[in-house]
Amino acid sequence: MNCFDRLADRVAAADSVLCVGLDPDLDRLPPAVQDHDLPRWAFNRRIIDATAEHAAAFKPNAAFYEDPDGWRALEETLAYAEGKDVPVILDAKRADIGNTARQYAKLLDAADAITANPYMGEDSLQPFLSHPEAATFVLCRTSNPGGADLQSLELEDGDQVYERVADLAAEWDDGNVGLVVGATAPEELEEVRERVPELPFLVPGVGAQGGDAQAAVEHGTASAGPYEGVGLVNSTRGIIFSYEDANVPEDRFEEAAANAAKSLKRRLNQYR
Amino acid sequence: MNCFDRLADRVAAADSVLCVGLDPDLDRLPPAVQDHDLPRWAFNRRIIDATAEHAAAFKPNAAFYEDPDGWRALEETLAYAEGKDVPVILDAKRADIGNTARQYAKLLDAADAITANPYMGEDSLQPFLSHPEAATFVLCRTSNPGGADLQSLELEDGDQVYERVADLAAEWDDGNVGLVVGATAPEELEEVRERVPELPFLVPGVGAQGGDAQAAVEHGTASAGPYEGVGLVNSTRGIIFSYEDANVPEDRFEEAAANAAKSLKRRLNQYR
Repeated sequence: MNCFDRLADRVAAADSVLCVGLDPDLDRLPPAVQDHDLPRWAFNRRIIDATAEHAAAFKPNAAFYEDPDGWRALEETLAYAEGKDVPVILDAKRADIGNTARQYAKLLDAADAITANPYMGEDSLQPFLSHPEAATFVLCRTSNPGGADLQSLELEDGDQVYERVADLAAEWDDGNVGLVVGATAPEELEEVRERVPELPFLVPGVGAQGGDAQAAVEHGTASAGPYEGVGLVNSTRGIIFSYEDANVPEDRFEEAAANAAKSLKRRLNQYR
Repeated sequence: MNCFDRLADRVAAADSVLCVGLDPDLDRLPPAVQDHDLPRWAFNRRIIDATAEHAAAFKPNAAFYEDPDGWRALEETLAYAEGKDVPVILDAKRADIGNTARQYAKLLDAADAITANPYMGEDSLQPFLSHPEAATFVLCRTSNPGGADLQSLELEDGDQVYERVADLAAEWDDGNVGLVVGATAPEELEEVRERVPELPFLVPGVGAQGGDAQAAVEHGTASAGPYEGVGLVNSTRGIIFSYEDANVPEDRFEEAAANAAKSLKRRLNQYR
């Protein structure tokens, strides 16, 4: 089953466009999971249990799993989310030349979708794009302050680089390509939506990064065509580490996460 | 000690600008190492032993290690190369937003340098750039066929995107930034060299990808300034899998690798 079909079903079933990021920073995990053989997996499991009903998808960022125990924790996490029937996007931002990209594409055996970096061009993404079921979210306009350094360079015809990336992604699309467009750049978000009306967006930057939730929903989840209304708005630290600011004991960190996920889901739903 | 100082010493000591890629594709490893607990590590160790005297650096590509055993194999590999006093560049092509990039930067605790993707801009590379000793090789003009898709887009002032990336990298440089420029685009290689005379280059694409060895050496290792003559020309499959085409028994695969490394080192040295 095509990833976007699965995602459409999940958005409807959970009545949510919320994507919950799973970035289990070892320096920030609560003591309650520190003694576990795989603290990151123990943490994620409780977060998944607490937030799954509000989540259209989960998004682990590969950076937080890049060591032997980390990859074990990631594998457990992917399988567990799969068991909950919630799609998982591996936030890997990968791309490489042919034989190497094929290696990276193996990551899609356990995830439903991946994020990919377009700088190396189409063939560097081909092993992702040709996966029979998975989706690829191509970085377009990212939510970080330096996102503009390259992405907003003006081309000879007046377009900016990220706009051309959106066009290229639409060319590469065979019902399996989405875009990453940050909520911290709401005008660009609107512009990209007009440019490529059919591509589903993954919109990071709401929450800890302070992005515009209304713009995120209105443009990010407004895809027309076969995947109408499919799109995701991501929050990570604002959910998984919400216990740090919430009035709950740290050994019940998942309660704070559940509350934060429910609250953000509702807020996002106001704009749908 | 700054990575480029270390690299300069190593280039002089080995009389070589050859970088040996370590991409232990599990589907291509010889049967002689398949029974090992960590076949990739067993393979790399024998390749390192056989080729170290000809190598200015080793370059494992992270894509080939992205599973629990893979990361163990990578850690062993990094430590072993370190013990041989040969600098290691982790070919990761990473970049991400602040707190995530800081996670990726931990990879530099065990490697001397990393490759990084510039699409997300300066702050996405900052944790690499601010490492006290490590170097960062920024992707500029890559060796794959699709490299031109984005990199060769023409900007309003007539520059191409990869040229602007070279300029940005020179701005970000504090004696620790290099560029990845492929040998499959020899004209661009010459042009980028003229543009940023002081940055060391890592030039892939010689060997299996059919790049121009002479241009790779003449422009790639022609840095002026404090790191004069420091640069690397990489070959991976043409060395580590050379036993497939060579007249040696597969259980002595490292002999073929040693011969291939020695031969390429000499060929590259003709142009220095």
